[in-house]
Amino acid sequence: MKTQVAIIGAGPSGLLLGQLLHKAGIRTLIIERQTPEYVLGRIRAGILESGTVELLREAGVAGRMEQEGLVHHGVEFIFDGQRIPVPLSELTGGKSVMVYGQTEVTRDLMQARDECGAPIIYGVSQVQINDAKSDRPSVEFEKEGERCRIECDFIAGCDGFHGISRKSIPREVLREYESVWPFGWLGLLADTPPVNPELIYAHHERGFVLCSQRSLTRSRYYLQVPLSDRIEAWSDDRFWDELKRRLPSDLAGRLVTGHSLEKSIAPLRSYVVEPMQYGRLFLVGDAAHIVPPTGAKGLNLAASDVNYLWRILSAYYRQGRSDLLASYSHLALNRVWKGERFSWFMTHLLHDFQEKSAFDRKMQEADRRYYLGSEAGLTTIAENYVGLPFENVG
Amino acid sequence: MKTQVAIIGAGPSGLLLGQLLHKAGIRTLIIERQTPEYVLGRIRAGILESGTVELLREAGVAGRMEQEGLVHHGVEFIFDGQRIPVPLSELTGGKSVMVYGQTEVTRDLMQARDECGAPIIYGVSQVQINDAKSDRPSVEFEKEGERCRIECDFIAGCDGFHGISRKSIPREVLREYESVWPFGWLGLLADTPPVNPELIYAHHERGFVLCSQRSLTRSRYYLQVPLSDRIEAWSDDRFWDELKRRLPSDLAGRLVTGHSLEKSIAPLRSYVVEPMQYGRLFLVGDAAHIVPPTGAKGLNLAASDVNYLWRILSAYYRQGRSDLLASYSHLALNRVWKGERFSWFMTHLLHDFQEKSAFDRKMQEADRRYYLGSEAGLTTIAENYVGLPFENVG
Repeated sequence: MKTQVAIIGAGPSGLLLGQLLHKAGIRTLIIERQTPEYVLGRIRAGILESGTVELLREAGVAGRMEQEGLVHHGVEFIFDGQRIPVPLSELTGGKSVMVYGQTEVTRDLMQARDECGAPIIYGVSQVQINDAKSDRPSVEFEKEGERCRIECDFIAGCDGFHGISRKSIPREVLREYESVWPFGWLGLLADTPPVNPELIYAHHERGFVLCSQRSLTRSRYYLQVPLSDRIEAWSDDRFWDELKRRLPSDLAGRLVTGHSLEKSIAPLRSYVVEPMQYGRLFLVGDAAHIVPPTGAKGLNLAASDVNYLWRILSAYYRQGRSDLLASYSHLALNRVWKGERFSWFMTHLLHDFQEKSAFDRKMQEADRRYYLGSEAGLTTIAENYVGLPFENVG
Repeated sequence: MKTQVAIIGAGPSGLLLGQLLHKAGIRTLIIERQTPEYVLGRIRAGILESGTVELLREAGVAGRMEQEGLVHHGVEFIFDGQRIPVPLSELTGGKSVMVYGQTEVTRDLMQARDECGAPIIYGVSQVQINDAKSDRPSVEFEKEGERCRIECDFIAGCDGFHGISRKSIPREVLREYESVWPFGWLGLLADTPPVNPELIYAHHERGFVLCSQRSLTRSRYYLQVPLSDRIEAWSDDRFWDELKRRLPSDLAGRLVTGHSLEKSIAPLRSYVVEPMQYGRLFLVGDAAHIVPPTGAKGLNLAASDVNYLWRILSAYYRQGRSDLLASYSHLALNRVWKGERFSWFMTHLLHDFQEKSAFDRKMQEADRRYYLGSEAGLTTIAENYVGLPFENVG
């Protein structure tokens, strides 16, 4: 098999990159270990930055999102029982975020790929990257017992944190940065109307709460829990009771509970690898970086990487700009570190850290009072939440 | 002896409180362990917030400061060799800071006290606070071998971190918060013109640098050094050489060096005690809280305490508002914690922390890039640097 850009992984970043390259007339081939159903079954983020929305429009896959997605002009914070509206649009010169689930983004991208007839091979195994440092890299894999080979110009590693792309790069070339957080998020998805029109990020002495949503009829709630907690210990009833205890009484009073469609505990991790490229292999999204979910930056940072890589590859094929290829890692990482910083800031701001010193806990409290009580402080939160601007390529 | 308010400590906070109360027609008596010369010999901060300047005006001691002090409308940050101007006035609706040494503030306050004939007793020892929880507290001390006693309505503990005021409060009533930083500041004072019109806060991989000043002909420079360093190891020449290594070459090239008037290594400490009052004893300034010097909040937080205590005591004597007395600790601490937060933020932002994890050091770097690269980020620094507003009393 031959293509121009081989893409490993058919999650949202691989699919979005494929779509943008396809629109630019560049041939791609996507391979994926799982089935499409498995990929769609992952419950992930639901908040799209304004730049991510723009990129989906540019990829021509924004139709259903424009119809069904909810534009949010604000979020709400709660601490010490006080509700603090953060008027995102007012504070950022009119920017907003889009509430539209990652699952839906992926579904739209799958459909677009299907419609344009560009290939995806699902159910591959034993993936191997060859000659990434040469001008003629290739990807090998097994499909239904047969060994296959893709010859290509470039390889995009969009295969997530546990994928083989990063692991194919010699260890001595990479520098890893990591921080593991001492608690997890217990998430519950339910077909109930959201408790509040806007998302709520709440600090409570019993732990952080996020009241998120996927639509006007589907809610997603999260509770900070100890990492030692097991999901079996959390019945739906216990979840709803604990959520109510951590919300002010007016909100708790109007919370609509219901049967959980999905419920799981996720650990929180911060991770970045540098550099994000090795010869003609480019790492994209979770393959190169993980953020804790506070601040909803995971999918948006993957889109940020796609934004840079797509433009760099387009410039290569359309204008012969091979000089830009080496700029990918630097451009992508600049924005990744800002997203890591914001996720880290939000996680510190809103969670309860039992193991911190009394002084450090007071500093967290002072951070909450300052940032949520100052217009400049709120603006720093708002401009990061809606997404910092992309740098120009080239 | 009898007075209305007994003030323990004749540093700037005790003197300023005395002056403001005197102007309001309230009698005060100040006692001090040291001599006036010793008090004036302490080399401390030199940057006054706009609210501190206002308070000195209100106290009628601003004459020489208005003549000789330097109004600064900006400061400068440096990291990665880049110079980043922070236009304080532009970012804060016209506020500024005043460069005027703590020594000079103290001298002006001493002179004003002298002129109005209000008493200060220097060289006291064996100070003891009695009956702080009653309506008739008193202060006892020894002076030239004789035991003396002041009967008063209130006691202001302005005697610093090592003073007896805080130590007179039963331990079980107090909660202490503390953080000790893993490095010190090596400071040098010289009669040389400042290297730059504005103050410079610089991050360098060899450690933090502050280029401060007391006047157009007197400079104050600081270097981050390991706590294990001894002052004997730092000749003037070594100091200037190290300072030049940590500054961009244009600045290093125009640095004027000279003989040190003073040179010392100070540890950095964050400390707060809660509450700041015990019956009719009020803690003011360093007696209740210490900040690391990054951000110049020490003297300004003492002035903040004085601002609240003076207004509360005035309202008591002039309008019979005894209800306000209990509000002191809460009002003072609200602002103290914000000052502690900013000092902690600035210290983290600008120093090199060898012992932090690689990820945490990357977060520090991302903080520098974000806060110093965003207008909202710079505004959070500027509004804290010029001083957050005081709350209203009553």
